[in-house]
Amino acid sequence: MKSLKSLNYGIVGLGIMGGSFAKAIRLNILSQNGSTGKILACNRSTACLSQARAEGIVDETFESSRVREMLPECDVLFVCLYPHATLDFLRDNRDFFKPGAIVTDISGVKGIFEEKLPEILRPDVDFIIGHPMAGGEKEGYANSRAEFFVNHNYILCAQPFNKEDDLELMRALIRDMGFTRITETTCDIHDYKIGFTSQLCHVIASALVQSAESPDITAFGGGSFEDLTRIAMINAPLWSELFISNKEKLVAHIENFERAMDEFKRAIRDGDDDALRRILSDTREKRLAMGAIRTIVKN
Amino acid sequence: MKSLKSLNYGIVGLGIMGGSFAKAIRLNILSQNGSTGKILACNRSTACLSQARAEGIVDETFESSRVREMLPECDVLFVCLYPHATLDFLRDNRDFFKPGAIVTDISGVKGIFEEKLPEILRPDVDFIIGHPMAGGEKEGYANSRAEFFVNHNYILCAQPFNKEDDLELMRALIRDMGFTRITETTCDIHDYKIGFTSQLCHVIASALVQSAESPDITAFGGGSFEDLTRIAMINAPLWSELFISNKEKLVAHIENFERAMDEFKRAIRDGDDDALRRILSDTREKRLAMGAIRTIVKN
Repeated sequence: MKSLKSLNYGIVGLGIMGGSFAKAIRLNILSQNGSTGKILACNRSTACLSQARAEGIVDETFESSRVREMLPECDVLFVCLYPHATLDFLRDNRDFFKPGAIVTDISGVKGIFEEKLPEILRPDVDFIIGHPMAGGEKEGYANSRAEFFVNHNYILCAQPFNKEDDLELMRALIRDMGFTRITETTCDIHDYKIGFTSQLCHVIASALVQSAESPDITAFGGGSFEDLTRIAMINAPLWSELFISNKEKLVAHIENFERAMDEFKRAIRDGDDDALRRILSDTREKRLAMGAIRTIVKN
Repeated sequence: MKSLKSLNYGIVGLGIMGGSFAKAIRLNILSQNGSTGKILACNRSTACLSQARAEGIVDETFESSRVREMLPECDVLFVCLYPHATLDFLRDNRDFFKPGAIVTDISGVKGIFEEKLPEILRPDVDFIIGHPMAGGEKEGYANSRAEFFVNHNYILCAQPFNKEDDLELMRALIRDMGFTRITETTCDIHDYKIGFTSQLCHVIASALVQSAESPDITAFGGGSFEDLTRIAMINAPLWSELFISNKEKLVAHIENFERAMDEFKRAIRDGDDDALRRILSDTREKRLAMGAIRTIVKN
């Protein structure tokens, strides 16, 4: 396997995710003795490029119009754009990637990648489908941090065309950036599971905010409402794209959830204390089991 | 107004709430120079009583069977029991409260108090209906803290029979324990608002856990699912009682929420990007407005 500290890393889209990749690579990989690698970044607006260069996080920066000068230098390229914009970027720039490069994405939906990649990519460029499971309601390079990924999950959806050496390198890179657990699965399972843990949760949080009668509701808050609606400070264009790109699976999850809500509603309306206690006890057990699993894997 | 540091405080039920009351009063009121007041506590199991006495948090402790020896000494009594158990306690012990005492509760439903109190209480005992808006999935005295209430809300539902001097004393006590905002309202409005911010959120979190297919789902978690289901580690008997005691209002909130979910589901199923972006942008604005209000009131 090539040494991570001798590679050139490219970041397309220097927002909270791209910025955190750059900072984690700078801190954990390219600050080691004998490092020869560089970080190159491209972004539509240029303010964050100047800032990242001034901070010593990235070595070279490129305005969007000059990205084709950057691509041939990058051994590993993170494309940190919205899902369809990522596919468009790969298509538009297919002739400019470095031969042998690893290219990867951060998209929250994967089925469209499995479907479109074969017709887009060159055989000498290895695209690894990945999803860093970290995010926040605060966007932009200004909110990126080297520690942003620590203790978080990363999902890889390896394809038959991926080279094992490249996957090994990607896993090592992910671990060095601070992620704790790498889950390898198919695009289909990814979209099904993420449709539940991420997209369904964002729909629920948003529907809860929409069903509030007035903003003064927080005078009556003890923390629950705040917890459930933190993620409702939502980036509308991104999440609309994610929801619609995964709509069959997401709608199935919404309907499962609605059935569970109806079971609670029925027991409450009927004043059925026995049924409610039973289902709430079961809920507590299930939730505790989930928490425990996460902790065990972390250690 | 009497001086808070010369009063005797009684706690019935020394769990996370009762224990935090005792610790906050000890730290913020009875540690001042010239304090002459005491804290007395009664609890069904006695382990926490010994611990609280050993820690110097409470001065005198009473097993449940001896509560009638404690009550005549208490100027301010916090009854930290489940809602119906609180009413039963008041009824069973009506002859033993100190004349002129302030008695208060922590129940998450208030309509039943407004309804039952007039027939239960003596005219020389002032019951102030209150709701400290703090809680946690970790229960018991072991998890109580003096700082537990800092920056939290307290709701008071004053009744026509309450004496203004007693309400003033209660407000001062609440502030001294660390609560930031006191909202005064009716029992009916309390139950409606809490049905939304607290009970509906607990139903949603529980239904979300119930709709998970397997506990390994957290391998695909990026924080959203964890945020939304922290409160699903739920105390079944307590929450069943709260839900059923407020069932008309809670079911109305569930149905409002279900209508909001359906609006999202329809837009997602139809792939209606315009509608989704519009409703998600509106959600973000609404949620930001709620956050801002909370922060402003805090300062």
